[in-house]
Amino acid sequence: MDKLNGVIKKIRPIDREIMKIAQERLDSLTKPKGSLGQLEELAKKISGITGSLSPKLDNKVIVTLAGDHGVVEEGVSAYPQEVTPQMVYNFLSGGAGINVLARHTGCKVIIVDMGVAKKIKNQKSKIKNFIDKKIKYGTNNMAKERAMSREDAVRSIEAGMEVIEEIDNLDILGLGDMGIGNTTSSSAIIACLSGLPVKEVTGRGTGIDDKTFFRKVKVIEEALSINQPNPKDPIDVLSKVGGFEIGGIAGCVLKSASLNIPVVIDGFISTAGALIAYELAPEVREYLIASHNSQERGHRVMLERMGLKPLLDLNLCLGEGTGACLGINLAEASIKILTQMATFESAGVSKERG
Amino acid sequence: MDKLNGVIKKIRPIDREIMKIAQERLDSLTKPKGSLGQLEELAKKISGITGSLSPKLDNKVIVTLAGDHGVVEEGVSAYPQEVTPQMVYNFLSGGAGINVLARHTGCKVIIVDMGVAKKIKNQKSKIKNFIDKKIKYGTNNMAKERAMSREDAVRSIEAGMEVIEEIDNLDILGLGDMGIGNTTSSSAIIACLSGLPVKEVTGRGTGIDDKTFFRKVKVIEEALSINQPNPKDPIDVLSKVGGFEIGGIAGCVLKSASLNIPVVIDGFISTAGALIAYELAPEVREYLIASHNSQERGHRVMLERMGLKPLLDLNLCLGEGTGACLGINLAEASIKILTQMATFESAGVSKERG
Repeated sequence: MDKLNGVIKKIRPIDREIMKIAQERLDSLTKPKGSLGQLEELAKKISGITGSLSPKLDNKVIVTLAGDHGVVEEGVSAYPQEVTPQMVYNFLSGGAGINVLARHTGCKVIIVDMGVAKKIKNQKSKIKNFIDKKIKYGTNNMAKERAMSREDAVRSIEAGMEVIEEIDNLDILGLGDMGIGNTTSSSAIIACLSGLPVKEVTGRGTGIDDKTFFRKVKVIEEALSINQPNPKDPIDVLSKVGGFEIGGIAGCVLKSASLNIPVVIDGFISTAGALIAYELAPEVREYLIASHNSQERGHRVMLERMGLKPLLDLNLCLGEGTGACLGINLAEASIKILTQMATFESAGVSKERG
Repeated sequence: MDKLNGVIKKIRPIDREIMKIAQERLDSLTKPKGSLGQLEELAKKISGITGSLSPKLDNKVIVTLAGDHGVVEEGVSAYPQEVTPQMVYNFLSGGAGINVLARHTGCKVIIVDMGVAKKIKNQKSKIKNFIDKKIKYGTNNMAKERAMSREDAVRSIEAGMEVIEEIDNLDILGLGDMGIGNTTSSSAIIACLSGLPVKEVTGRGTGIDDKTFFRKVKVIEEALSINQPNPKDPIDVLSKVGGFEIGGIAGCVLKSASLNIPVVIDGFISTAGALIAYELAPEVREYLIASHNSQERGHRVMLERMGLKPLLDLNLCLGEGTGACLGINLAEASIKILTQMATFESAGVSKERG
């Protein structure tokens, strides 16, 4: 808990002075004012986060955190639990969606085992794209008991912080997830925090049918009723209905914010982790870039709670960090606009008539 | 007119058989079905356009067509006419928004003078990024007479076709525009074709004030009333209230569709050109990818008329092909998903439970 509190204390408001200068710079470029819309907002925000008018975004890293969920024994997912470790191996051998989009956008992918229910053998440990932070072999079934102890919830957050410390070069971070059952956990988190009815913040996850959907809603209602998580205590919420990878994501967000590193969040689960971080330290909000609007209906509620507007709306719901990858690509584009475009003066272009 | 008719005759429906196989391939990849949303739709569409399950998108080209508009003498823009050639020089020296985003996404930029009101001296003709297809030194003032003769309208479309023929390697095309006054022309085109009131399809262009906006609406109403363009005759519409760059864009669309090349359209003006092509040959619709939803309010009406859903909604309104660049980047991402991801079988990942 000391590590967690220490990091939270280091998170500062972003640099509004630099943002003002960035806005002036944007307005001097050869384009009508504001005509690059959200790209301009993004450039300004990243200037504020990094405290720089020419932020370096060379080292783009996606961290994909994996963990299993005891609640899957209630039959809430379309896929069996064994898919979590199978997908981890798929990540490590470069065949998953996140690997393809990361190569496309020049991002490095790091996979973290936060609590997969099987031992992960990392045959490729030399290439350092795997970090073992396993807290336990999956959470408990939250429909019957708390998902994890309060101590393990804090450990999962602190493990996420350590992951960021262990990455050698990091200019911008994207956060993804893998874990069969983790939309169930994420829906429980936002239902608890928002007070909204469970069915209004629960979606189809990996594509479940009506029958499974109704069971999923009922299971989440039971989990909330049995565990009674306190919405004013984010660690209580995480420990009772969360997951190890969600705690890890929260830790990555907090640590990155404390280091003035922009954090691009992905979809529903990644945002659930960011939300835990936000409830612990609301100032992290300014360090977050919402990459996209997920198909999962609870996602919008989370983003609105943090006052974040997503960049993309491509009907994605894969997770892994795939949306975050595309968001990082736009972030990079926005900084190139800020730093590489000619000004009206340098290009000899006439200005707007007064 | 022979060239135009010849090209139109060569445009075929896209390949639905290949699209079916592409869908099966997408469903076999290690992700829940449909979880990459619009990226999957895009991959399927590009397969259908190119007739290939592994379309080559190595040669990505943005063609930015420039032309001037006589109607600017009515005071409809925030910028003086001299900005058109000044921006052409900015494009040629690599300092504009389109250059920055093209470098970011690996696209080549080709600038075409379709009718700039000044002579363009291409000091860098060696690097072949400039094509001279000037029809005239700007259109006539459409508020007083037709913008151009019917012959020049056809010539502008055929010149656009020639541009595509002159590009050595072209796998995917993005279309941009430059021309002070061209949102006025584009609003007139969609008002005529849709029959909607002018003020419902007119926006703020480069950022005009209320007074200029009301004048712009009145000028468009006058142009439509004096010229009486026939909405059933797209060449009549183009010649009376269009522009040379808009005709050129229409020609690029038609020729590319005839060659099975995917065409990514940009914002309001690029879409106005595509709309002229669509009215001439509705089957081009299947070859079009709408990159983004412009701030210009008439843009949505155009896209709906063609049944196109934009990929991005970033509040852009710069033109030049900037949105198209980002769209090409997503198109490339979608094809990498189709061709590079592991399947459930190859990665040994368990499938959905039946």
